[in-house]
Amino acid sequence: MREIGVGLLGLGVVGSEVAHVLLDRSARLSEQVGASVTLKKALVRDLSKQRPYAFPAGLLTTNPDDIFNDPSISIVIELVGGEQPALDYMRRAISGNKHVVTANKEVIAKNGYRLLSLATEHQVDLRYEASVCSGIPVLSPLQQDLAANEIQAIHAIVNGTTNFILTKMAKEDLPYGDALRQAQDLGYAEPDPTNDVEGIDAAYKLAILASLAFHTPVRPSDVYREGISGLDPKDFTYAHELGYAVKLLAIARQRGAALETRVHPALTPLDNQLATVDGVFNAVQIDGDLVGTLVFYGRGAGGGPTSSTVVADVLTIARNIAMGGIIRPRMELNRRIPVMPMADIETRYYFRLSVMDQPGVLAQIGRVLGEHRVSISAVIQKELDPVAQTAQVVILTHPSREQSVQSAVGELAALPLINRVCALIRVEH
Amino acid sequence: MREIGVGLLGLGVVGSEVAHVLLDRSARLSEQVGASVTLKKALVRDLSKQRPYAFPAGLLTTNPDDIFNDPSISIVIELVGGEQPALDYMRRAISGNKHVVTANKEVIAKNGYRLLSLATEHQVDLRYEASVCSGIPVLSPLQQDLAANEIQAIHAIVNGTTNFILTKMAKEDLPYGDALRQAQDLGYAEPDPTNDVEGIDAAYKLAILASLAFHTPVRPSDVYREGISGLDPKDFTYAHELGYAVKLLAIARQRGAALETRVHPALTPLDNQLATVDGVFNAVQIDGDLVGTLVFYGRGAGGGPTSSTVVADVLTIARNIAMGGIIRPRMELNRRIPVMPMADIETRYYFRLSVMDQPGVLAQIGRVLGEHRVSISAVIQKELDPVAQTAQVVILTHPSREQSVQSAVGELAALPLINRVCALIRVEH
Repeated sequence: MREIGVGLLGLGVVGSEVAHVLLDRSARLSEQVGASVTLKKALVRDLSKQRPYAFPAGLLTTNPDDIFNDPSISIVIELVGGEQPALDYMRRAISGNKHVVTANKEVIAKNGYRLLSLATEHQVDLRYEASVCSGIPVLSPLQQDLAANEIQAIHAIVNGTTNFILTKMAKEDLPYGDALRQAQDLGYAEPDPTNDVEGIDAAYKLAILASLAFHTPVRPSDVYREGISGLDPKDFTYAHELGYAVKLLAIARQRGAALETRVHPALTPLDNQLATVDGVFNAVQIDGDLVGTLVFYGRGAGGGPTSSTVVADVLTIARNIAMGGIIRPRMELNRRIPVMPMADIETRYYFRLSVMDQPGVLAQIGRVLGEHRVSISAVIQKELDPVAQTAQVVILTHPSREQSVQSAVGELAALPLINRVCALIRVEH
Repeated sequence: MREIGVGLLGLGVVGSEVAHVLLDRSARLSEQVGASVTLKKALVRDLSKQRPYAFPAGLLTTNPDDIFNDPSISIVIELVGGEQPALDYMRRAISGNKHVVTANKEVIAKNGYRLLSLATEHQVDLRYEASVCSGIPVLSPLQQDLAANEIQAIHAIVNGTTNFILTKMAKEDLPYGDALRQAQDLGYAEPDPTNDVEGIDAAYKLAILASLAFHTPVRPSDVYREGISGLDPKDFTYAHELGYAVKLLAIARQRGAALETRVHPALTPLDNQLATVDGVFNAVQIDGDLVGTLVFYGRGAGGGPTSSTVVADVLTIARNIAMGGIIRPRMELNRRIPVMPMADIETRYYFRLSVMDQPGVLAQIGRVLGEHRVSISAVIQKELDPVAQTAQVVILTHPSREQSVQSAVGELAALPLINRVCALIRVEH
């Protein structure tokens, strides 16, 4: 049986799991491929570090050349993470005519198109299914199974850390800080949680999803971003009363000749599949003009799910090598669709105001919104604070332009009868 | 640009949609493939029949030879449905070295393995993604993206007709007959609904899913089947009180050295993703040892969703032809896992008894169940009928053996204080 050598860059949580699966299941995997898929070397920074599995002597190396210069290695798995040196490693592997499998969303979101061009030039494959929602197959279905569709919209929960925090806030009425600490204690959030809670990680994933879905280059910097750190558990309660859950959504939607791409907290109807996605789970909802609504749900992080997908990508490449198939990595970005400025988007809005408990306040709010052509779909007045003589007013609007809503809310904040705009959250279908 | 000819067998609802998509989007689809994908002929029974689209003159034919004998046609799409003549058509296409795409679950469930062997022999591809849940990509992810996993279980809602009826019964408290009539009025159910409501259609799909997931031949006749026609809306209400929805589930699960394969109504916890699948939607939940739980959700029938998948399969084959790739259709059934007799399965049970309102009845029920080692997890006593002096007792058990439960229930039915066993429904996690 022909041997197909594999080199692994990075032996952290995910890397160790991938190495273990490749070694432990090698007979069955090789049988599936019709060639012997053999893990030859794994690059680490520290040879003496304790690892979850006892790997064979000689597998580990601290010298990248042991992988890049080994002609028996034809597939390189990059699991170093972050932008550098991961990007350089991938370039080097591809330039040496080695196929690459990666789970690196940052590198793919920022450099995917160029890397794929380089791969095409070198007639090697570059697969990155695990870069978006790790265990959930979504990039391959999007490119293959939905190829006949015009994609209309993507609504997705692509970050497990924030979804865990939001679920805690919703179900246990916890303030953001407490929920974040629980996520950190459980290892779901980093000591510095910025990447997750500010939506940076989600924007990487959305850039990849949107590029593939709409066949146009979408950079992470094209994605409007708003994080979850300003959310108040009160709004989860009011939202629930109105029939909504609060989720951090990654949204890409074709609107006429432009594309909306945005990551922000959103009210999601409770009967929508995304509203039922709790804890660290992820889900990607795709609307295609032929297929209608599809949802892909599963674990978006962790050693098991990520290794499932990374090894599947390795097997696909190995099968192609074994069958002598010609490989043409594809990211068909043959359209140029401009991203719509955030001010121009149109959606529904939820906002909560702390107001003085005096006559005429609702009339004033109504007047300001009317002047900005923001029309109200529901109002709740709540919780008179008898000492401060303030009340909470919650407003849900009909579809309105972002710019109008922002101007109206700015004007409301300046009214003497209004103490504070406590929350402004978009409402997505 | 090289031309790849396509022939279509059957121009009903789905066939018309597929033809329309191939003709209407031909420029974009051909660009994606790198070859011109051209629909050449469509086989119909009646040339004069009114169709939803105005197809070009010369496209329609009543003579199958116009497709099978045309050397410029290299891909044949079978959308005739049913076992014959569909099976003969596919055999003839493959034997003539033409690739085949089908949505035919009956033929694939009964003859898939033999057809794939024939296709391998003739070095052509046979794709059937649309045969299970039409618009939802699930067979390809199962075979490709989950290839590194040992699949542990599949729980699926694969029949939209019955899910529509069950949703109506649950949400509108309708009896089965009324809900069925609504489904028929809307065109979701056939005048003779047997195939759907008795779980025959679901058993075909489960046989295909289970064969691919567990790499063992599972025939439709291996699948235990129980339909939905005996369900009473009362049980939907009680189930909901206990925290469950009632769904027709298709279940395949590895249990030690054997496989459970069964289609029957089941109580599904309300916080499970499958419980939120309403109306004509389908969902397939797959548990893999690496990836954990995945759910694929979408439309499982209809012209749009089915054409989405059928055309995608055509494009995959066309791309392989254009790239000169070697095609090896795969259904790796290299294991032989016996199907467990239904009497041996172990799960939880819900049952409802109509009992005489007399002292000691619960004690008698408890004694009979105890003698059969069926242990009770919850009891509700309900609805004293003051005239008949009868009450309803609902019992939820801990995991128990099917045979023990059936014996116990048979014994209960014979007790003088028990009028009737009104319902017996399995409870799935």
